[in-house]
Order: sequence, then C-alpha cells, then structure tokens
Amino acid sequence: MPYVFDFDHDHGVAPRTLKAVLGGKGANLAEMASTLSLPVPPGFTISTEACAAALRGARPPGLDDEVDAAVARLEAKVGRRLGDPGDPLLVSVRSGAPVSMPGMMDTVLDLGLHDASVEGLAAQTDERFALDSYRRFISMYASIVAELDPAPFASLVDEAREADGAATDAQITVPSLRELVRRFLALVREGTGQPFPQDPRTQLAGAVDAVFRSWAGDRAVAYRRREGIADDLGTAVNVQAMVFGNRDDRSGTGVGFTRDPGTGEARPYGDLLVNAQGEDVVAGIRATEPLDAMATHFPAAHAELLAAFDRLERHFRDMCDVEFTIEQERLWLLQTRVGKRGGAAAVRMAVEMVADTRIALTHEEAVRRVTADQLDQVLHPQLEAHDAKRLLTTGLGASPGAAVGRVCLTSDDAAEAVDRGEDVILVRVETSPEDVHGMMVSEGILTSRGGLVSHAAVVARGWGKPAVVGAEALDIGPHGFRVGDVEVAEGDVISIDGTTGEVLRGELGLTAAEPPPELETLLGWADEIRAGHLGVRANADTAEDAQVARAFGAEGIGLCRTEHMFLAEDRLPVVRAMILAGGPDEEHAALERLGVVQEADFLTILQAMDGLPVTVRLLDPPLHEFLPPTHDLEVREATTGLDEEEQRLLEAARSWAETNPMIGTRGVRLAVLKPGLYGMQVRALLAAVHRHLEAGGDPHVEIMVPLTVTAAELALARSWVEEEVAASGLSAVGRGAVTIGTMIETPRAALLAGELATSADFFSFGTNDLTQLTFGFSRDDVEGRLMNAYLDQGLLPANPFETLDVDGVGALVGSATDAGRRARPGLKVGVCGEHGGDPASIAAFVAAGLDYVSCSPYRVPIARLAAAHAVLDARAAAG
Amino acid sequence: MPYVFDFDHDHGVAPRTLKAVLGGKGANLAEMASTLSLPVPPGFTISTEACAAALRGARPPGLDDEVDAAVARLEAKVGRRLGDPGDPLLVSVRSGAPVSMPGMMDTVLDLGLHDASVEGLAAQTDERFALDSYRRFISMYASIVAELDPAPFASLVDEAREADGAATDAQITVPSLRELVRRFLALVREGTGQPFPQDPRTQLAGAVDAVFRSWAGDRAVAYRRREGIADDLGTAVNVQAMVFGNRDDRSGTGVGFTRDPGTGEARPYGDLLVNAQGEDVVAGIRATEPLDAMATHFPAAHAELLAAFDRLERHFRDMCDVEFTIEQERLWLLQTRVGKRGGAAAVRMAVEMVADTRIALTHEEAVRRVTADQLDQVLHPQLEAHDAKRLLTTGLGASPGAAVGRVCLTSDDAAEAVDRGEDVILVRVETSPEDVHGMMVSEGILTSRGGLVSHAAVVARGWGKPAVVGAEALDIGPHGFRVGDVEVAEGDVISIDGTTGEVLRGELGLTAAEPPPELETLLGWADEIRAGHLGVRANADTAEDAQVARAFGAEGIGLCRTEHMFLAEDRLPVVRAMILAGGPDEEHAALERLGVVQEADFLTILQAMDGLPVTVRLLDPPLHEFLPPTHDLEVREATTGLDEEEQRLLEAARSWAETNPMIGTRGVRLAVLKPGLYGMQVRALLAAVHRHLEAGGDPHVEIMVPLTVTAAELALARSWVEEEVAASGLSAVGRGAVTIGTMIETPRAALLAGELATSADFFSFGTNDLTQLTFGFSRDDVEGRLMNAYLDQGLLPANPFETLDVDGVGALVGSATDAGRRARPGLKVGVCGEHGGDPASIAAFVAAGLDYVSCSPYRVPIARLAAAHAVLDARAAAG
Repeated sequence: MPYVFDFDHDHGVAPRTLKAVLGGKGANLAEMASTLSLPVPPGFTISTEACAAALRGARPPGLDDEVDAAVARLEAKVGRRLGDPGDPLLVSVRSGAPVSMPGMMDTVLDLGLHDASVEGLAAQTDERFALDSYRRFISMYASIVAELDPAPFASLVDEAREADGAATDAQITVPSLRELVRRFLALVREGTGQPFPQDPRTQLAGAVDAVFRSWAGDRAVAYRRREGIADDLGTAVNVQAMVFGNRDDRSGTGVGFTRDPGTGEARPYGDLLVNAQGEDVVAGIRATEPLDAMATHFPAAHAELLAAFDRLERHFRDMCDVEFTIEQERLWLLQTRVGKRGGAAAVRMAVEMVADTRIALTHEEAVRRVTADQLDQVLHPQLEAHDAKRLLTTGLGASPGAAVGRVCLTSDDAAEAVDRGEDVILVRVETSPEDVHGMMVSEGILTSRGGLVSHAAVVARGWGKPAVVGAEALDIGPHGFRVGDVEVAEGDVISIDGTTGEVLRGELGLTAAEPPPELETLLGWADEIRAGHLGVRANADTAEDAQVARAFGAEGIGLCRTEHMFLAEDRLPVVRAMILAGGPDEEHAALERLGVVQEADFLTILQAMDGLPVTVRLLDPPLHEFLPPTHDLEVREATTGLDEEEQRLLEAARSWAETNPMIGTRGVRLAVLKPGLYGMQVRALLAAVHRHLEAGGDPHVEIMVPLTVTAAELALARSWVEEEVAASGLSAVGRGAVTIGTMIETPRAALLAGELATSADFFSFGTNDLTQLTFGFSRDDVEGRLMNAYLDQGLLPANPFETLDVDGVGALVGSATDAGRRARPGLKVGVCGEHGGDPASIAAFVAAGLDYVSCSPYRVPIARLAAAHAVLDARAAAG
Repeated sequence: MPYVFDFDHDHGVAPRTLKAVLGGKGANLAEMASTLSLPVPPGFTISTEACAAALRGARPPGLDDEVDAAVARLEAKVGRRLGDPGDPLLVSVRSGAPVSMPGMMDTVLDLGLHDASVEGLAAQTDERFALDSYRRFISMYASIVAELDPAPFASLVDEAREADGAATDAQITVPSLRELVRRFLALVREGTGQPFPQDPRTQLAGAVDAVFRSWAGDRAVAYRRREGIADDLGTAVNVQAMVFGNRDDRSGTGVGFTRDPGTGEARPYGDLLVNAQGEDVVAGIRATEPLDAMATHFPAAHAELLAAFDRLERHFRDMCDVEFTIEQERLWLLQTRVGKRGGAAAVRMAVEMVADTRIALTHEEAVRRVTADQLDQVLHPQLEAHDAKRLLTTGLGASPGAAVGRVCLTSDDAAEAVDRGEDVILVRVETSPEDVHGMMVSEGILTSRGGLVSHAAVVARGWGKPAVVGAEALDIGPHGFRVGDVEVAEGDVISIDGTTGEVLRGELGLTAAEPPPELETLLGWADEIRAGHLGVRANADTAEDAQVARAFGAEGIGLCRTEHMFLAEDRLPVVRAMILAGGPDEEHAALERLGVVQEADFLTILQAMDGLPVTVRLLDPPLHEFLPPTHDLEVREATTGLDEEEQRLLEAARSWAETNPMIGTRGVRLAVLKPGLYGMQVRALLAAVHRHLEAGGDPHVEIMVPLTVTAAELALARSWVEEEVAASGLSAVGRGAVTIGTMIETPRAALLAGELATSADFFSFGTNDLTQLTFGFSRDDVEGRLMNAYLDQGLLPANPFETLDVDGVGALVGSATDAGRRARPGLKVGVCGEHGGDPASIAAFVAAGLDYVSCSPYRVPIARLAAAHAVLDARAAAG
C-alpha cells in the first residue's frame, strides 16, 4: 500500500469513505478532484498511516521517495517546478485528521520560496507580494517546523511597521520587507545553527514531519482524551499547489455556502473579495462583498461555482461550504466540507431537504441531521458573539438560555426593580424557598454556591429560566459583588449564559428563542421513530408546569414533587405547625389542613394531564428543609435573642438537623417516623382522582415511594396506600386508575430490585441520588472545585451528574431493570433524574430497555429528539 | 401419628433429637424418663404439631380423646385420680417450644383443684397450703386461660393482707384465704359469665388451648420476628404430675448444676430448701442452703442426685441444670436442660471437657461451646446484677465493658478530677479531637449525640474503653444533665454499660475482666480451625494499639488510620498551617514537618508489628475535621468578634465546609486537590521502612488508597506511590516489602472491582462506608431514632452497621471479590470496617472467601473465635 495519493487517484471507492486514511480534508479534496471532476488545484495526500508509523518511531523509509514522485507528478500537472527560480510552483501543507481536531498544526503556505524563487515570484506577481509571502513563510516555518520562539519575529515586524510609520503590515515598504527577510533568515540561522533551508524538498520534509509531530502535541492529546479519540489514528498531510487570488483584478477569493447557514434558506450564500487571498477574508481587514456580486465581477466563474454547489449538494446530500479562489478568471475550489450551521438553520434544512427531490432525505436522515445542541439553541435565547474580555467568571450552566439584567442582591429588591420596569438578574450566595418571589420575576439567576441540583438550579430549570450556579469566584457583599479585582455594584448590568455558565459584564445582545416553523414537523418524525421504544414525560410540580410540558409534547408527568407544594408561602406555616406539633392531635390537624390544599393542587395537575399518566412522589426531603437554618437562629440567639416561637423553631431545627442530610431522614424514612404523613397525601390525591372522574376526566395516577431500601419498607408503604384506596370509596374505574411503585435511587434498591418488584407496579430510577450514592459524591460539595479537577485530569470522562455513568450507575440501572422484570413481567420502568433530559444518557436508557424518561418541561423536545437518535443508533449498531 | 406422648414413650430414637415435635422441655423430660431411667414424675407431652394444627384453625378432633387416654395412664401410674375429692392428682401444665422462647405462657400449677378436691388436698397436706394453692390456681387460670384482667385479683390479695396485718402473703390467715377463694370464684363468674370450671378435664383443655394461643401472642410473635424463628413451628405442652416438696420435713426442693455455672469448676453446685416448693426457691423469701447440705438432710436422695448428675453429663456431654423435688425422701427430677453459664465458666468447661474422658469433647466441639458473647464477658468488666429502677436511659453501646465514675462535663474537668484521684465518666453532647486528653483519662465516655462511628465511639473502641453514645434522652446543661425529671449533677456517680448501652444512677459493682487461664488454649484451637480460611488483623493507629493487638493474637494491622496521627495535639497546628498555606511553598513546608513526625510514628508501628503486614491508609477524612467548627466561630464573630488568626480559620472552615461531608471531599479526592499530601505520607512511610530494615527488622507494608471510585483515580494514586518508591533508594528487599491497594468502600468501586484490580495488589472492604452508601444511611443521622423505628417495625432484620447486610452490601462484597480475583488471581482481600469484629458478619466473610478481617484490638479474640465458628458452620453445611 502506498502512503501518498494524488487527489485524483483512483481509489476504487468513493474517497469520502476513506477519511480514516486520507483525513477529512484530503478525502473531500479527492472527492471533488476525482468523483465530481470539480476544479481543484492539484496536489496529494500523505496518509494517516504514514503519520501513525512515524509516531511509532517507524517513519516509512520509502516515504520521501513517494513524496518526491508525487511532487514530480504535481509539477507536471501544473507546469511549474517547486523551487524554480523563474516561475516557481508554491504549495500549501495542511494537516487533516480523520476527525476535525483543534490543537494541531493547521497550515504552512507558500512553501517552495527561497532566496532565488522569491525573485521569480516577484517577477510573476509583484515584489511586495513576493517578499511579504517569503517573510511569512520563513516565520511560519521557523515556529512550526524549527520550533523557534515566534516572539522575536513578531517584534521585528512591529519595529519595521513603526519605522515605516505604517498602520498595518500591508503598508510596510518593500525595502523594509527585504530587510525583514534578511533578519528573519538570520534569526533562523541563530536559532537552529543552520541556514534556512534553500532546498524545497528539505522544506517539504520538515513541514510534513511537523504535521506528524503536532498530532502528539499537548493540546491535541488533551483534546483527544476529552473527546475519546484514539491516540494511534494519526493525521494525514495535504500538499496542494497554491493559486493566487491576489494576482490581479481578474482574480479574487471567497467562502461560499450552498445554503444560508444562519437561516437555512435554500439559496447560495457567502463572501467575496476581489484581488485578495483567503487569509484576507479571514482577517476581516477589507470589507467583503456578498457572493451575488461575483455574477458581476466573474460571471463565468460564478456560474461554474453555482453548478459546483448543485453538484456538491446532490453528492453530499447536505449543505456544503467551500473555500474558493479565482485566478485570472479561473475558478479553483480549495476545500469543501459539510457546512456548520445554527440551530434554526439545521431544523429548516433538515425538513426542507426531505421535500427537495435532489436530496430526498428520509425522515430518519432528517432527524439525524439536527443535534440536541442545535435544538437547544432554538429553544432558548442565546448571547450574541462577544469579546472574551467581558467574561467575569464561569459557573455551572444550570438552566439553559441567556439573560441580561441589572444586579439585584435580594428578592425584595428584585421585585421592586421589576415593578419599576427593569430587567433583573438575581444574584445570591444560594437561594431558598424564601427567594422564590424574587426568582420568579428575574430574567435570570446567578449564585456563588451550590451545584446542579441546588434549589436555584432546580427551580430555574422547572421554569425554563436561565441560571448560572456555583460561580465560586463571586465574592458577594452587601452592595454588590467582586470577581478578583473587578467590582460589580448593585444595579449594574450583567449578562449570563445558563448553557455555558458564563457570567459577563455589561449588556450583550440576545438572539431570540424562536423555534422555526419546521420544528414541529421534525419532532413529529422523531416521535414516529421512538414510538414503541422510549416515552418522554416531564417533571412537573404544578398545573402550569404540566401545561408547558404538554405543549412541548410530554406524554405524562414522570415526577410530581409534592414538597414544592409544601414550600409555597401560604403552606410553610402549616408544615411547620405539623413539625412542631405537641402531640398526635395537633399533628393530625396540621396534616388535614395540608391535605385540603394538596387535593386542590393535585386536581389541577390531573386536569392539565387529563388522559396521561401522572407520577406523584410522596414527600421526600428531610424535614429541616421546611425549617429556618439553625445557623441564622443561633447567631440571633447569641446577639438579639429569640422570641418563644423562634425558640421552638430552633429546637425543632436542631432536633431535625443532620450531619449528612442527603443520606439522612428523608423519603419513606420520614413516613416511618411520621406515619400519618403519606396517608394524608394519598387521601388528598385520591380525593382529586375522585373529583376529576366525577367531572368526566380521565386520571392516571402512579403513586411513588421515594428512597426505598428494603422490600419490607415498600410493602409497608404499599399497605398504607392500599388502605387509603380501600377506604376511599373510589369506583372500580377509579381504583384501576391508581398504581403504586417506587423510586430506585439507592444502590441497595437497585441490587434488590427483584424483591422490591413484588410490591411495585413500576420503578422510576432517581439517577441523581443513585449517582450520588454509587460514587459517594455529594453534588452540593463535589461539583465545582473537585469535579473540575477530576475532569481536567481525565479521572472522569464526564460529569456523571450530567451524563450517566454507564459502567457504574448504568450497570445498576440495567441489572435492576432486568431483575425487576424477571420478578414482575411487564413492570413499567422509567427515569426521573436529571439524566432523563441528557442525550448521551438517553441512549443508555434506550439500550437498557426503559419505558420512558422524564425531564424538565423545557427539555422535553430535546429528549424526544435524543430518544429518536438513540433508537436510530441502536438500529444502526444492530446492522 | 399420635399427638400425645407419655414421657416414657418408646420413640425408637433418642427423644432429645425430637425437639421439633416434643419441644425442648418435653424432649429432655422424655430423655430422662426413658433413655436415662431417671426418677421423673410421670406425665405426657402434647406435640407441637397439635399446636400448629390448632393455630391453622384445624384443632385435631381426636386430641381431647388422646389427652383423656393419657390422663388415664397417668392416673394409673401415680395411683391418684385427677379431681378426686379425697386424694386428688394435681398436674402442672407448661409450654415448651422447640427453641427457648420468652413471651409465651410458662406454667399453670396445681391444675385439678376444685371446690371438693381442695378439701382432699387439705386433708393430705394442711388447710392453709391447700387453700393458698387453690386461690393461686384460680387467679392463674383466670388470667391465662380466661384472659381476665389480673389486677382485681391482686387488689383482693392486698386487701386481705392489710386486713390481717400480714407482712407477706404467707402470713394471710386461713379464714382470709377461704374468703379470697370465694371472691376469686365470684370474679371469674362475673368476668366470664360462667362459673369457675369444676371439671378438671375442662380445666385441662382450657390450659392446653391457652398454651396454644400464647404461641401467637404479641410478645412471642415479636420475639420470633426478631430471632428469625418460623411462625408455623408451634409449641408443645407438657402435663406432669405434681409432687410436693412442702409436704413435711422429709421433703424439699432445689435447683442443681452438674458444674459451677459461675466459675466452671467441675463440682456439683446448687440450692436446697427443706419443706418448700420450687416457687419458694425462685421467690427468694427463705434463705436456701447449699446443695452439699442435702447430704445431711437426705443422704439417699443426695447420692441419687449425684449419680443422676453423672449420668446427665455423660449423656448430654455438657453441664446440665436440674429442678428437683424430694417428697418424703423420694427424689423427683422435674426438668433438665443444658445449663446456662457465664463467660469464664464456658471457657473453663469447654477446655476441661476435652480432658474429661467421660465427655471427651473434640477441639472443634470445645470451640463451638463458647459463644462470642461469652468471650466478650471475660474480656471486659461487666456491671453486676442491678435494679431496673437505677436505669436512666439506654444509648448505643459503642465500646463494650462497664465503667463507674463521677460525671465530668468537660475534658479539663475530667483531667483535674483524675489528678485528684477520682474515677471519671466524661459526659459530652459529642466529642471532638479537642476532647482526647479528657477521654484518655476517663473510665468511660457518655455522649448524647452521634452513632457507632462518631468520634467518641471510634476513639473509645480503639482504646478498649467503655462508651455509650447517642443517648438522646440526655439533656446536658452547664452543671449536669437531666433525663426526663431526673437531675444528675456534675460530680454525681453514674455507671455505664458500653455493651448494652445502659446508663445508670449511682455506683454499681463491676465484675473483673479476668480472662480464665484456659482462654489461650481455647483460642489456640480456634486458630487451628480457621487456619487457611480467615486471618484476623487489628485496626491500630499507634504502636501501643499495635502491641495490644499483637498480644490479643492479631496477625497484622488491617487498618492504620493516619489521620489520628494528624489529630494529636502537637500536630494539629501544623495540619492547620498546611490548610491555611498561602502558597505551594508554605504548604510544602508544613507537609514536610508532618512527614517528620509521621515517619517516627510509622517506625514504632512497624517495630511493634515486626514480621507481620501493616496496612496504612493514606489520609482519608475531609479537611474541615482538622478545623474548628464554623458554628462556634460564627457565633463568636457575631458576639465578641474574632482575631486575625481566627478570622483566617473561619474562612478556611467555610471554604472546606460541606453540606454532606461523608460524601464530599475525602479520601483520594483530597489528594487530587492537594497533590503533595500523599507523596509526603508515602515518603515518611518508606523512610520508616528503610530505618526498620537497617535495624534488621522485617517490615511488610500495604499502602492503601481510600474512597476510590474510578480505575483512573487508583492508577494515578498508584503512580504517586511508585514514583516515591523509585525515588526512595530502597533495596530490592525494601521495595518487595511494599504493596499498593485500595479500599472498596463505594458501591462504584465494588461494581468496577475488576477494573480497579488491575492497579491493586489488594482490596480492603470498608464496610462502614459501603453500608452507608448502599443504603443511603448516614450513620450519624439514622442510628438512634430512625434505626430503632426500623428495627422495631421489622423493616430491617438487624442494624446493618453492626451485622453485615448480606443481601445488599454482602452481595457487593462477594461480587467485587470474585471480579477482583478474576482480573488479578491471588488478589489479597480483607475487611477493615466495624463488621470485621462482628461474629454474624464474619460468617459472611468466610463464605465470600475473604483472606482476613480486621477489627479493633479488643475484638481480636472474638474475631478469632467467630472465624472458627464460621469455618465449622460452613463445614457442617457442606455436609
């Protein structure tokens, strides 16, 4: 097998399928040059295998001969010779890995210039251009191939510019350029102990080896580790004849897209610069013209480009982008690839390409064309492109979308500012139920403490409101906050990005969250694909949440947290009365009062989800969450003193305080200690079922017991529910509308799932807690400092709270599902943790055979899409 | 199959093997009456199967006829008739389950008395005795058979005593007794609507049914649930002719033991009362004579009893106890069983019975004869028998043994009091490292908060010092504590029992912890049995601990916690300096200072364990454990203000404070954040290895990484250790003395044990944390209120922190061991959690194929014994 292939080599198969050998860039160049017969400047690709061998210390001995032969063929095709002092052939050398990979050497241009050929180039073009190209080539070569420090080269350029009084490099005079070249050559000689190579073959061999080396560079290795790319793939190297768009006014250069990458509209799109090189387009120094202007400047080349666009779209069956150059009215395509696009464009293109008979995507293909990240973009406002200098810090992106507003430090201030008509970002160390009114009116929420399940994060996600949490660099004072040396005062405007976790100074533009009209069509196709595989429900605690979820396509509620009902401002005193109760009678009275309000809550939720299942989790959090923090009361006790009511609250808070509340008295444990609690909740729920049935509704209720660890516990809790059902006077239809199940959120529950299934109609994996316990990772404590260290050092492939840990937690999910279904065939199994809205995790849940996932209402469309992707992947993997 | 068997029935097999049918008492009575031909008052046993059938609602229809026939045979043997008005046969009716079971009906005596036969009995004995027997029988019958409230009967007796001016019931006059009988009969008639049955057969049928019913009584059911005894076994009923030791001075009664149950000495032992009934011995109203006195009073009966003792020991091959009665110089044995004994006696008897040629126990049998509880008794001082009224409350028995001393509320007070020569019990809400000096000098420790792994519990166990923790009823004030209405002031004497958790008022006598000389022999036999199965190591953090452990027979250290070295008074400031360090240099300097002291600590431990393995756990606890509590500092900040040093401590404490420290930044996670930390510890350890080798010692060091969750983490930590080993300049022998392994204490580590094993030379299960995480049970929070509720309600069979949860945690231990050994054959696997010293858990570890357990030094003898028991059980189960 040779290591070097001309672009127009006959591979026997479509070159685009040979990315592993030719790299992405090389494969597409070969595709254009051979299959599509498009005008590509000739060249050749050195295969990834040569690189891999070289990195193994076994650089193929015949490689240089192969390269020489390829250069000879190239020279013959172009009619110029590399290093020819009269009319030299110049080449570019670019890396091109099988997968796009930042952190590697990109390009060496103008290779082939030396002291003699630069004069030939000057004669063919002009002296300024030739000298400028030469000094650029020397410094590029020096830094990349000879690995010299680039700073002295840059300093010399700065000096020359100053000496000439030039504003830009382009205004440096020819004599200065000539001097620069001289001094650059001297720098190389000093640095390497060798003169700058005047033999183009030495230059080329050096550039090729530099590309090989860059595969093993630190940044490239780190990137591969992060992305899980194998180290032994290697990169290809593309050597291509240079063409010059800056030869004269009959030349030009540009970038074109076969469709508008911003909107997805099916019309050619791009930028053009007359008499310029590709670099000038990228550098943005001169104003570009729209692509349409090419029809005026170069009508023939324009027609040829549009024909090429059509050809590329038909061939790649997707939107492509192209780098092109016109040299003396002749069109050359330098590179093509499937083009990047924004979220809205991705959706529109995918749907339109189904109808486009030239492309005729299937529904499956269209669904695959849109990524979860692209969907996220169209569902939430995004920050417009911005200067990195505005970045204050990065916290945890806790609820996607961007927001802009004035800093308010308390919920009361936020409410007042909103009343005055201001947009507000609420900035708190952490939030508590007492902040809810301020959170509700704010555009976004920013906290300095807490993880992705902190109060702020959970509440914001439930409302689809942008939030950044755990931004530990924030030092919040009474009148503003500080990040390092930067002070931000109350009332100052900041911008936050709840997707990336960025916190920025000042007001940034927002792109609207405007789902394109094609979205419904696309999600409909996604639903077709996932039908019979994975349902998508939402986590929703209120009728409003339920309505939003239903509008987003949720097929039921997978998690209705009843504690959020307890935290409402008018109920907290009743909950506290229950906790402080002096005896069973007082406790019972408080429970009954709670029952009345819960019944009304449940009824509105059942109405909003009429005909669809609603999973109600019985009370889960530790009781101290309903009490004020002991710390505050103790400090007040030591200073101003406490009144009698506060003293009782302090005693209760101390009595229920726990060292590790996450693994303390929570969930069904609470109900074992306060046996009336679950009974009250179930009675309220059954009363709501009764009323909804009476009104002609169609309720489906799944009563869920949290934090189970033993079969005896679940059997006991089930008996409480069954007693209430028996005593409820519900009709047979009503009784049939109620099932009883458990969360699986402790490792023990997963290990003993077979036993638990005998008392459960369904399982719902609480993968947040299951991850916390399987790893022994308290989210509140490890997200941030520790998790960042683990991700940076490659100790974890991903944050297991964002993406399911397939090997550990996933193994428990799989084995518990299997054991549960063996014990009870047909057992319904779902997931209601955060992972239910994460695409990578959804794939694991499809593989485990789960019936549904449940996520926050605003994640439902993403879950629908990701579930379809997972089904398609599984189908593809099965052959 | 008949349901009724005479005691002398020929079963064809030894009746003692028929306990399932005859119950324990009935089987032994039959054994004496038939096989051994000992003088047993005739009688018969109604089988457990009759009871089981009756409880199923299928009382055997022929049962009454069988009983009638048996009564007729009994009457023929005795020569008296049941209910005969002249010389009536009286019988006792006793329950006798297959296993000894409190909570069931015990005995109805004198059945067969009625208005006519009581006069016959009076004529045969005396009037007082006959009437007293009758009123007792009526009231016993009323409460047990007719299920009437016993209170009115007791009130009438009180009235009669008062009316007669009698000090005891024995002084009630005959007319009063006659009146009592009359009023008792009236009470029965009122309560049941029926006259008291005058037909002895009706009485008998009622008593038999009452025994049957008592099997299903609440207390019996609760007991069976707790002990895991099946509900469908049923109990047997024994009906036996009564004999009267109180007939005259030629009669008497007593209890005898074939050996001394207190000391184990091989000589008959017991109590005798002339002219008395068995009840009188139990009631303790009259002073008993020692058994030897029988030689004077009843020489023939005495000789017969000694012969019976010899017969019983030869037959049961164990020490037996006997209830006996002498009626007019004739000896009757009423009951026998293998006798209960104290710990010291159990050890002595087991060893002596090997040498005793009449019994000739094998070593295996001798080892089986001593329970772990009995061994515990001889290793720790125990409280002497005491009045229940002294009990203040019961906490968690955290460190076995009993202690007596004056209440001290601070460690400084404790130290001063001990200087004055007082014995002290340190009473604290909870303890912290700052209390260590007070704990060290106290006789015992009592806390109102915290579980079995709280600071107080762990430290006390390590020292073998009695401790009761989590005694929540204690309300500790500045000058004493309150339990309910009882006030205990500073300086008052209390007694605590760290085995049972009891806290008692005043000074109780202590039995010495004096292991009998036979213990070493017995434990040597235990070691023979467990050799090749399960090693026993100790958890020891200091050279002193290590010496104690070695003296108790530990075969190495399974867990040396390096944090205890950090907590010593002179090191805490250095640890804090490391935490507060302003930069890497300060941090490094502090680490080096710690390294110097750790090296010295390690060297003394290696010396103490010369030739045996020492497992050193690298630093594990969260850093805030080395800082003062934020709460204290914050209250001071709000009141008196803080100085600069305190302010820095507060900031550090806040920065390292965690919501759930148990699952926060601990173990190897800490080392990832503070990379110099483990390097310092390993260097110090290797330096100690080097010095010990130089001095001709034989070190074996196992370096253990705590809280691992991923293979990458362990590989990283292993690389740190290997770098230090490579840089240490150790000889090949020295390097060979060092192995590297990990704790398995998170579910994920257990699930991915196969991966972890590739970087581990050994595993050590940290079953405390593994239990916490598998259940999601924070020990500090759930032990006490919640755990008690779970145990009371049968939701857990045992506290999983005391006895390994075989189904959940045990399954992880088993599968991780197997996976680890598949990945690395010969992988050494041990346990270093609390369960390593628990007999029931040790059985599970033997079954899982573990190499060793490690427990606190004072538990080592128990673990040696329990391991032998587990091996014997496994051998027996294998057939």
